[in-house]
Amino acid sequence: MQVVRSKRALKAILSQQVNKIIGFVPTMGYLHEGHLALMKKARLENEFVVASVFVNPTQFGPSEDLEAYPRDEEKDQKQSERAGVDLLFIPSVEEIYPKDVSAQIKAVQAVDVLDGKARPGHFDGVLTVLLKLFMLVQPDRAYFGQKDAQQVAVVQNFVSDYFLPVNIRVVETVREPDGLAKSSRNVNLLEEERKEAPVIHQALLAGKARILDGCQNEKEILDAVREVLRAATLKLDYLALYSYPDFKPVTDFTKPIILAIAVQYEKARLIDNEIVRVSGGETNATNDDVC
Amino acid sequence: MQVVRSKRALKAILSQQVNKIIGFVPTMGYLHEGHLALMKKARLENEFVVASVFVNPTQFGPSEDLEAYPRDEEKDQKQSERAGVDLLFIPSVEEIYPKDVSAQIKAVQAVDVLDGKARPGHFDGVLTVLLKLFMLVQPDRAYFGQKDAQQVAVVQNFVSDYFLPVNIRVVETVREPDGLAKSSRNVNLLEEERKEAPVIHQALLAGKARILDGCQNEKEILDAVREVLRAATLKLDYLALYSYPDFKPVTDFTKPIILAIAVQYEKARLIDNEIVRVSGGETNATNDDVC
Repeated sequence: MQVVRSKRALKAILSQQVNKIIGFVPTMGYLHEGHLALMKKARLENEFVVASVFVNPTQFGPSEDLEAYPRDEEKDQKQSERAGVDLLFIPSVEEIYPKDVSAQIKAVQAVDVLDGKARPGHFDGVLTVLLKLFMLVQPDRAYFGQKDAQQVAVVQNFVSDYFLPVNIRVVETVREPDGLAKSSRNVNLLEEERKEAPVIHQALLAGKARILDGCQNEKEILDAVREVLRAATLKLDYLALYSYPDFKPVTDFTKPIILAIAVQYEKARLIDNEIVRVSGGETNATNDDVC
Repeated sequence: MQVVRSKRALKAILSQQVNKIIGFVPTMGYLHEGHLALMKKARLENEFVVASVFVNPTQFGPSEDLEAYPRDEEKDQKQSERAGVDLLFIPSVEEIYPKDVSAQIKAVQAVDVLDGKARPGHFDGVLTVLLKLFMLVQPDRAYFGQKDAQQVAVVQNFVSDYFLPVNIRVVETVREPDGLAKSSRNVNLLEEERKEAPVIHQALLAGKARILDGCQNEKEILDAVREVLRAATLKLDYLALYSYPDFKPVTDFTKPIILAIAVQYEKARLIDNEIVRVSGGETNATNDDVC
């Protein structure tokens, strides 16, 4: 695996990969198994795999602590290499933002709900850095985790709207054997919390089952989720149902739906989601009796 | 020359041009000699030349008449073919804007002066459509006319900021033998106005000469321009000096400067500009006596 820090060195190596299919995994580093799953998937599907480690300042809000974001470059390099990355790009902030941009990108759809609601401008920063990275790497495919479903949606919409020549590949959330979504924050769970936390995924699956059963009543679907969580000690931050990937209120239950949750434990905030795809024929679209 | 109207057909033909150097000339159609000069330059410098004819609705303001924009597709096709274009893309509005974009592009530098001042959002629309077209065509080089200097600057800044893999080629303003910048609006000049109009270019050259002589006094430079226009019947819309390409007040006369003008005749508004590049050694940077 080669490691480069400048745009120039990145381009020099990429220019040697003539006609190779390029997969790209953009990350903010401090890699966990979710990232490694993206890298392994990219390795399987492409001839040359590029990953980036860049803590993007423009996606942090003024009250969010950019400096406190965890970093471990040495470990990131080892893990990337083991996951099959060919080229790791670790640019400085100056390399990506030599000056303020002359034109800003403003995400306007699917941003004012869930995690985006509390983080105005967050997705503007995500799109800004991704456009830059996509233009530098020019990948055929780029890999994102389904766990950050809202980010995936915003990125997919942007790529689709601007005809970016990159195929966005969404990789399923990696889970512990008991169903808890893997996250670097899981280590902050107390012992009892860790034992309880799989209930988050179980609750989402209960809601998903209701939708697949044909229930089209939002309140009853969400109640099915809440019922599973009833005895849990966690604090619910949000629990919501939206059309996917546009994140609007659900009007058509035969189109993709996201069931998303965020919970707060003592020292860890966890998120998870399920995308539900009901094909038109499989459910009775006009019968609410199943709820 | 092939003519295509869909993204799909465009991509199909482009995919056959394996490893060819691609030049691209985006236009709003109703081609005049300025456009043809861009196409001919692209023909000289590239192996495959793509041009587009698309009257982009997002760069028109609410008070600007999109429907009244002149169109002559048949003539555009003939002229493009004669200028050496290989592939002409004439998409519908629906093809380029199948829906509202989920993320907007907002130009924030070099936009609130000159023509941009009276057209808020104009350059947002220009960048929006160009990003889409660049992503579809993926050109190695794209061609723009120096006559629209502010547009050139906004586009160059955008390409530079987001590392777009396209080389922006700026083609000198095409002029009549008497120096008048060619424009489709020149036909709207009255006979006497047409005789007088070359004075616009002469006036800019007088200002340019003052800068090259070492004058660093903005008022005196602009007075030199006004002096040439003194007897003319035209109405001055704006006359200004800015650093180029950032369009800020000039503080360093050894860096590129744009001298830009817009004048109003009875039925025609004309623009013109000169970019002045004084190399550091050629002028006395601290002596105002030459003004």
